[in-house]
Amino acid sequence: MLVRAFVPAHITAFFVPAFHDDPLKAGSLGAGVNLDKGVNVFASVEEGSLERHVHIAFNGEPVGKKRAVISYSVADELVPEDFRGDVEIWQYFDFPNGYGFGNSAGGALGTALTLSYTFGGTWLRAAQTAHRYEVLNRGGLGDVIAQLAGGMEVRVKAGGPGVGVVDNLFFEGYKVLVVPLGRLSTREVLDGDVVRTIEREGRKALEKLLMEPRPERMMSLARGFAERTGLLSGELLELAGELDRVLRNPSSMIMLGRGLFALLREDEVEKAISLVSDLNLPYDVTGIHEGRPVVGRWVG
Amino acid sequence: MLVRAFVPAHITAFFVPAFHDDPLKAGSLGAGVNLDKGVNVFASVEEGSLERHVHIAFNGEPVGKKRAVISYSVADELVPEDFRGDVEIWQYFDFPNGYGFGNSAGGALGTALTLSYTFGGTWLRAAQTAHRYEVLNRGGLGDVIAQLAGGMEVRVKAGGPGVGVVDNLFFEGYKVLVVPLGRLSTREVLDGDVVRTIEREGRKALEKLLMEPRPERMMSLARGFAERTGLLSGELLELAGELDRVLRNPSSMIMLGRGLFALLREDEVEKAISLVSDLNLPYDVTGIHEGRPVVGRWVG
Repeated sequence: MLVRAFVPAHITAFFVPAFHDDPLKAGSLGAGVNLDKGVNVFASVEEGSLERHVHIAFNGEPVGKKRAVISYSVADELVPEDFRGDVEIWQYFDFPNGYGFGNSAGGALGTALTLSYTFGGTWLRAAQTAHRYEVLNRGGLGDVIAQLAGGMEVRVKAGGPGVGVVDNLFFEGYKVLVVPLGRLSTREVLDGDVVRTIEREGRKALEKLLMEPRPERMMSLARGFAERTGLLSGELLELAGELDRVLRNPSSMIMLGRGLFALLREDEVEKAISLVSDLNLPYDVTGIHEGRPVVGRWVG
Repeated sequence: MLVRAFVPAHITAFFVPAFHDDPLKAGSLGAGVNLDKGVNVFASVEEGSLERHVHIAFNGEPVGKKRAVISYSVADELVPEDFRGDVEIWQYFDFPNGYGFGNSAGGALGTALTLSYTFGGTWLRAAQTAHRYEVLNRGGLGDVIAQLAGGMEVRVKAGGPGVGVVDNLFFEGYKVLVVPLGRLSTREVLDGDVVRTIEREGRKALEKLLMEPRPERMMSLARGFAERTGLLSGELLELAGELDRVLRNPSSMIMLGRGLFALLREDEVEKAISLVSDLNLPYDVTGIHEGRPVVGRWVG
């Protein structure tokens, strides 16, 4: 049986990390947007061998346990102990790993959903399993619960699925421009001194967004957060300025990757594309994925 | 501006009421299914008169405050105090009121979503407003949060949106047969002695479903709950028996209405329809609405 899950890429606009010894209570506050590109996970299960084997591949290439510790841990928990056969998990990413698109959480959640669909389970338990290993292995804090919510999300109470609370903004007619330029280590940022500033600025941004919960406000607060924390600076900040000249709403930084994102109205798409093309930068323009991830038997 | 929301009809399979003085902590445990028919709510807002007017209509007929106290309360809270103009809320129901399809919650949630979309607000606040007036006016306890979750839902922690926790079952290829025969007063049932039995049997059913979280198990537990609480008896129980003879999974009672529902595989639809047609009973066969309600500007 072949089961497929689609989990949207998730871009964080601003955030407050919430660390906790209980991984289900760890999470983050903040806001972000889910794209209609992201991670497709296919789980292929064949019974009948003498042992229980789990194999994982990224974009068609088999990966070992070290490179995919989160997804292997999820699979190990959700494939029944007494299963004898081969489980293959194929993860395909629309965006590069480490660039701030929530690939790690998307792969983990897609793995959890396809395996739970196959072997029995529920949405909440699958999501909690993905969140738990994300947190334990420091893949991320808020992506899983944000990807579950879809759309433009606001994490108003920190925690994993079933513990944290996610709200959603109403929006209409927006596309998302992404300019992915490189990696940024979430781990290094969260280990640094900047974490205090992130906490303070993130809380302020959240408070202000909830007073005026609109996509446009989210972008201006995201930009303020990115600049005041010092995460957005130098060339990236200059590029944000260039984008601002052709767009109605401020662009901001992908948290956490070396890259920018912006909301585009239909009539802004062409201008945005011609600007980033002229600068020879990689980019993508995607829709926003509303609602939860998709999972089901694959008969493509 | 005309904004439309679709909220699925929600059928409760089994439940445990959870009363609480704080309406956001009141709710229910249990399980149920959301249909792809339900309530369509249109909000039409015209600024410019001297006063603030709110009008509500059910299926095209204007209704006064007494007959629609929940939706009027929601509108009164979500239309800004200083708004001067006419707000018309048109609610269209695919199923009759009082038959156990969550019309009251659907109308309230649809009203809250369309008005929040129009005047500003968020998904969570809209849903909490609908839930609060549902509880305060005893329209229901668990419909709003169940309709927000969509699909086949399991309420694992009681409470309103942001407080309660809803899980979802995985399912594939089911349609739902509904046989709506009449009203049943939720209020009278919950005021009666049967409430103790409901609590005991509901808890047992939930516990068992979580041990084996599958749609087929939900139906057999629903049926056991309906019979052991004595809510399903007499002619309705006989009819359930007739349906069972042609279906793989047990049918059960719509909580709370005088009616039955059953899950149908594609190859069972014809048999089910011919049985209820032969008996001259009203029926409908619908799909299952997955994910959250739909809201957006109406340009039909």
